[in-house]
Amino acid sequence: MAAIQSAIDSQTKPPGSLGQLEPVMALVAASQRSLRPNLGQPHMLIFAADHGVAAAGVSAYPRAVTAQMVANFAAGGAAINALCRSAGIALTVVDAGVDWDGPPPGVVACSQGRGTANFVSGPAMSPAAARRAMQAGAALVSALPAGDRLIGFGEMGIGNTTSAAALLAALLGLSPAAVLGRGTGVDDAGLARKRAAIRAGLVRHAAAAPLAALGGFEIAMMAGAMARAAREGRLAVVDGFVATAAWAAVDSPALRAHSIFAHVSAERAHRAVLGRLGVTPLLDLGMRLGEGSGAALAIPLVQAAAALLREMATFETAGVARG
Amino acid sequence: MAAIQSAIDSQTKPPGSLGQLEPVMALVAASQRSLRPNLGQPHMLIFAADHGVAAAGVSAYPRAVTAQMVANFAAGGAAINALCRSAGIALTVVDAGVDWDGPPPGVVACSQGRGTANFVSGPAMSPAAARRAMQAGAALVSALPAGDRLIGFGEMGIGNTTSAAALLAALLGLSPAAVLGRGTGVDDAGLARKRAAIRAGLVRHAAAAPLAALGGFEIAMMAGAMARAAREGRLAVVDGFVATAAWAAVDSPALRAHSIFAHVSAERAHRAVLGRLGVTPLLDLGMRLGEGSGAALAIPLVQAAAALLREMATFETAGVARG
Repeated sequence: MAAIQSAIDSQTKPPGSLGQLEPVMALVAASQRSLRPNLGQPHMLIFAADHGVAAAGVSAYPRAVTAQMVANFAAGGAAINALCRSAGIALTVVDAGVDWDGPPPGVVACSQGRGTANFVSGPAMSPAAARRAMQAGAALVSALPAGDRLIGFGEMGIGNTTSAAALLAALLGLSPAAVLGRGTGVDDAGLARKRAAIRAGLVRHAAAAPLAALGGFEIAMMAGAMARAAREGRLAVVDGFVATAAWAAVDSPALRAHSIFAHVSAERAHRAVLGRLGVTPLLDLGMRLGEGSGAALAIPLVQAAAALLREMATFETAGVARG
Repeated sequence: MAAIQSAIDSQTKPPGSLGQLEPVMALVAASQRSLRPNLGQPHMLIFAADHGVAAAGVSAYPRAVTAQMVANFAAGGAAINALCRSAGIALTVVDAGVDWDGPPPGVVACSQGRGTANFVSGPAMSPAAARRAMQAGAALVSALPAGDRLIGFGEMGIGNTTSAAALLAALLGLSPAAVLGRGTGVDDAGLARKRAAIRAGLVRHAAAAPLAALGGFEIAMMAGAMARAAREGRLAVVDGFVATAAWAAVDSPALRAHSIFAHVSAERAHRAVLGRLGVTPLLDLGMRLGEGSGAALAIPLVQAAAALLREMATFETAGVARG
């Protein structure tokens, strides 16, 4: 790391003047074991699934919107489609467990079931199902071209901020109030139901493995996919609140060395959770959409950091006087 | 504007969920008079000039670094080169008044003089010279292809945060202490000299037009270029502290309707100045390089906002249920 910092400091700019991009430059260099990193074609993986806890009335939208929005992704009309086209990111949409007979063309069929069970009354999935979902997510990452080193992770699933909140509370030892937020915009009555569902899930599953008991199929697939990305030396760009919950279910030194947090979302608890995890997001745009939308906006910043490392002249080669 | 907001709210996302991108979407739509805006090829214009006040010992770097860094821009080895290549931005480097016999190949020759005079002992330039510089900057914008609607503005010039600080203090009625900062990293003794220079300039030129008396050739060219961009319906992406000073010298309803502030820099006074101007920057990455580096990182965000407007489906066309 000292050699990397010395290389960054030899470049034609005042030391530290690239601010928060400099630690990203250092992370990219260390993870790619190169001062001239080439990250290849960036990818965005979006994992979609339904959640049994949606039956508890925790969302502003009906459960059917998961399937409708995934169809919208497949047709190219959602925010994430526009964002990926704008930034030149290859988009893969994965059916991790949507409640339908099967996905439309253009969606990767990898369903782990027609939605999880409601964690208020039993485990969301079995430990074996959680392991299978993680392995399936990992396999999708390994199938990407080896030279493509930058992967955004996002999700879609009505009810999944409730699952993510419960999971984060269990993993980090936080109270239901500390992880609660309005998700896509639930009203006060829905928020009260959400708090009650989180509390009930935490009490019921206090002795269980949190990812299986409280998570979702898309969350478990993302967790496995992120872990595999890190193991393969790829960079994981973590989107918002739900993607952060998947990340926290894995949290390891290897994953930390390969992760960039895209943004702090407007979901109330996200800032505190990122602080608790000791990680710093790149963007703070008040977004609360999910779909990998924050990751799609952060990927060009990571590409910029790699380009700065790779392409900037040094004071010596450029003939510029140091201060 | 109501029609624009209604169109944004009909798109397949919870209302407001794109956060700070939504006002950018509205500004883009209004400025382009279109809900399907195409911004064309983005451009970055970098204006470079020397400053008489550098003789007061206000910078961490010697005056010769202006010319050396512009040569580095021309050779493609500076941060802004890497950032523009990474984001697909066309870069134009302009000699607005560097102290040399003439620019190297690849730099637009538009010198307004071999640096300004030291504003501590007289006006930086005459009012007529300031007008000429503004007109020259405007002409460069008008020479860009009509369909290219997105222009970043950046600068290079040893001593120019001193000029920008004095100019902002005069324009906004702020004290020298309120606009003071370390620029590229001046030490405590240099900071004291910088404060003294700003104070002396403000006292000497209290009755004069601020842009001519305290500004720089690159600042005056940027001011004219930004004003012309707005008049031609192009969008100005304003970089950091010095570009903000140029913007503030013009500040008009037309310019506001066509301006996006790229970032709040680590230059101490920038956050307060942006607040005083009542504008909201997109990024907060602790950068303090200048060169248009923040603008180059923000341009993809503005392109993303245009793509969201242009390409997203509505709830009706996509068959997605509203909450």
